Amino acid sequence: MSVLFKDIYVLTPSGRAEKSSVYVSGERIVSVGEAPEGSKADRVIDGKDRLLMPGLVNSHTHVYMTMFRSCADDIPFSDWLFRRIMPLEDQMTPDDCYWATLLGYTEMLSTGTTASLDMYVFTETAVRAAEEAKVRAVLCRGLSGGADDEAGGKRRLDEAQKEISAYRGKNPLISFMLGPHAPYTCDEGYLKETAELAASLDLPMTIHVSESKNEIETVREKYACTPVEFLDRAGVLTDRTVAAHCVFLTDGDIDILVRRGVNAAINPVSNLKLGNGVAPVVKMQKRGVKLCLGTDGAASNNALNMFRDMGCLCLLHKGMSGDAAAVGAADALKMATVGGARALGLEDVGEIKPGMKADLTVIDLDRPWLRPFNDPASSLIYSATGSEVESVMVNGKFLLDKGELTTIDRERVYYETEKTCRRLGLL
Amino acid sequence: MSVLFKDIYVLTPSGRAEKSSVYVSGERIVSVGEAPEGSKADRVIDGKDRLLMPGLVNSHTHVYMTMFRSCADDIPFSDWLFRRIMPLEDQMTPDDCYWATLLGYTEMLSTGTTASLDMYVFTETAVRAAEEAKVRAVLCRGLSGGADDEAGGKRRLDEAQKEISAYRGKNPLISFMLGPHAPYTCDEGYLKETAELAASLDLPMTIHVSESKNEIETVREKYACTPVEFLDRAGVLTDRTVAAHCVFLTDGDIDILVRRGVNAAINPVSNLKLGNGVAPVVKMQKRGVKLCLGTDGAASNNALNMFRDMGCLCLLHKGMSGDAAAVGAADALKMATVGGARALGLEDVGEIKPGMKADLTVIDLDRPWLRPFNDPASSLIYSATGSEVESVMVNGKFLLDKGELTTIDRERVYYETEKTCRRLGLL
Repeated sequence: MSVLFKDIYVLTPSGRAEKSSVYVSGERIVSVGEAPEGSKADRVIDGKDRLLMPGLVNSHTHVYMTMFRSCADDIPFSDWLFRRIMPLEDQMTPDDCYWATLLGYTEMLSTGTTASLDMYVFTETAVRAAEEAKVRAVLCRGLSGGADDEAGGKRRLDEAQKEISAYRGKNPLISFMLGPHAPYTCDEGYLKETAELAASLDLPMTIHVSESKNEIETVREKYACTPVEFLDRAGVLTDRTVAAHCVFLTDGDIDILVRRGVNAAINPVSNLKLGNGVAPVVKMQKRGVKLCLGTDGAASNNALNMFRDMGCLCLLHKGMSGDAAAVGAADALKMATVGGARALGLEDVGEIKPGMKADLTVIDLDRPWLRPFNDPASSLIYSATGSEVESVMVNGKFLLDKGELTTIDRERVYYETEKTCRRLGLL
Repeated sequence: MSVLFKDIYVLTPSGRAEKSSVYVSGERIVSVGEAPEGSKADRVIDGKDRLLMPGLVNSHTHVYMTMFRSCADDIPFSDWLFRRIMPLEDQMTPDDCYWATLLGYTEMLSTGTTASLDMYVFTETAVRAAEEAKVRAVLCRGLSGGADDEAGGKRRLDEAQKEISAYRGKNPLISFMLGPHAPYTCDEGYLKETAELAASLDLPMTIHVSESKNEIETVREKYACTPVEFLDRAGVLTDRTVAAHCVFLTDGDIDILVRRGVNAAINPVSNLKLGNGVAPVVKMQKRGVKLCLGTDGAASNNALNMFRDMGCLCLLHKGMSGDAAAVGAADALKMATVGGARALGLEDVGEIKPGMKADLTVIDLDRPWLRPFNDPASSLIYSATGSEVESVMVNGKFLLDKGELTTIDRERVYYETEKTCRRLGLL
């Protein structure tokens, strides 16, 4: 199957847009500019009033938590976690998670996201949902363990290893990481063991880091250091590690992230919504930390819409720094595309150029809030809502085709997730 | 003309939603619950998967600035104002402003806003655009003056008075305020004169207050007090005054706002985007300041989409206060509906109850990000984007009818505004 996006605005890495044509054949972008001579596309997409951008990469989320959207808002963080979310999670079956994950992919595709890093609970359902949706997914099971629960931690690590070896390499769109949950749910021994397993299996890792003040205090009391120092000591921080949140960082922490080449996945909306605060993005940028962007789960966002997080990121850091020039639209776009792709180990997505995988998002510019179209990057970050996404291609296949999902039965997903919500007493 | 919204979720002031039916006859809501016996609606709107909410009220904007959307982003504030926006404003003709204003109303209607407080440049075009769009509008000409430019200030005030007397009372949807621009563009004598004129004409006032650090310093140097203290001394602050921005407030300033009953119009997105910071909303709430919400102009937002500002407001104050329970979804909805209506002197809009004017917004809930629909207020604030607005009624008339504007020729507006942008070198 070949597709020609004809005379369409193509977003450049610097945030500009030029009218061009993009030719896709099979899984890849073949040309940008003019279609190769003699090539005949099976399908031609008219680019009038349309912009083509790289598919967005959500570098930190928990897709199954889409079930918990809007079920625990405007309450203190500890009530949110311990009295609402955790008791609900305990009642989730693999089947519940499967449908909730498909609802999450429905939302992500509808708002232009083509790849995500999903920390899940049940491997089989996470894999099945991603496979059926045909999205690009990096999957990891959230792992916790330590001296308090040695048997449980060991069992989870063994299971994760077995599950990964069962699924790894079966589907080119799906890859895996090891996902020790956080410095306060894994002890030093467990983290070291996980890091060693990751090295031996050649797997990257992802972990929540310095998300809340409470975490900082807990780690300080137990280990007399910061969470970043602690994780570094445990061998978790490498240039393939994705460290999510990174809100409370010391200058020394930032040094470590730079030295280890860690990817920091910033979650501006979730960090605000849970009252955790603001990651030091301006400082991290200056020091050269590798940055990417995530939504976190829908229980703490409450959307998986990367456009919301991109806009929030820029606004927030201008406001906090007192500098209207801080964290610009092109920075946010970079974090949400190529930055995320590299963080997730996806070497050939995140940019529109020949040879890259065809993970693409088509934006319908016929919206009053995108007029006048004075500056493409600004329009996408400061005016667009994510609802302008018309079509989405992953690996050369349309998964959203002029607003219609091609791999997910949306009505069924609504029905099944609402059934679960009723059982859980949420609806 | 009568309209029955049948079996539709109706948003309550507390942020819940109940299935009900709303009957509108002429300009007003006649009943909520069951249609009055014997009533026969000219039109029935099926409420399946729909929510009815009060039309949103944008309590501070400059609609003509929609022309400058995305034309000056990610640059320092002083460059933004003095090197980009002000030179562009100087080149705007009344006709340019007319089309830009219609573009702004196109966007506001498309995102559920039914009323706004617009500080404009040219009276005739501001009135004409609002009249033709058939929106509810409170209009004021931005006024500056003082000892530096006595003749100019006097002329502007005289003109404003004449213009208001020419248009006032002609159209029940349009009312006026006097709009002295800011404490740094109007001196004490000019503000006193303006306040006296407002009192003699029985007109409310609106003014920018404590928006930037620079303003605080300027006023401190010149008058040895805060902008709020200065305005109070000049007689500008009454219970009908709308004070826009209110970012840098002392405790004493907040006392004055409470004592005078001033309406504070918070502009969270614009205040972040220009690097000005965050208004002390949590403290203002606790002390009982009357709060409403505005987008400011599209040159500093870059949208006139109240959903963006409502979401940003809540997220921001949770993040800044470290309290996930701070500024909840119901608070934002109140500020953006009844809070705004009262601030703008609109006594019979902002709520869905019998006898109120029928200013209503219909939300299409068939979006993946609104599923599951666990909590209506949360869904509207933390997940919705504004693009879910399907229909909008002002004063009993549909101005947006299933996505189609009934009073504005959108294509013509795009064409004319783009023509101007090309002339100004923006496109």
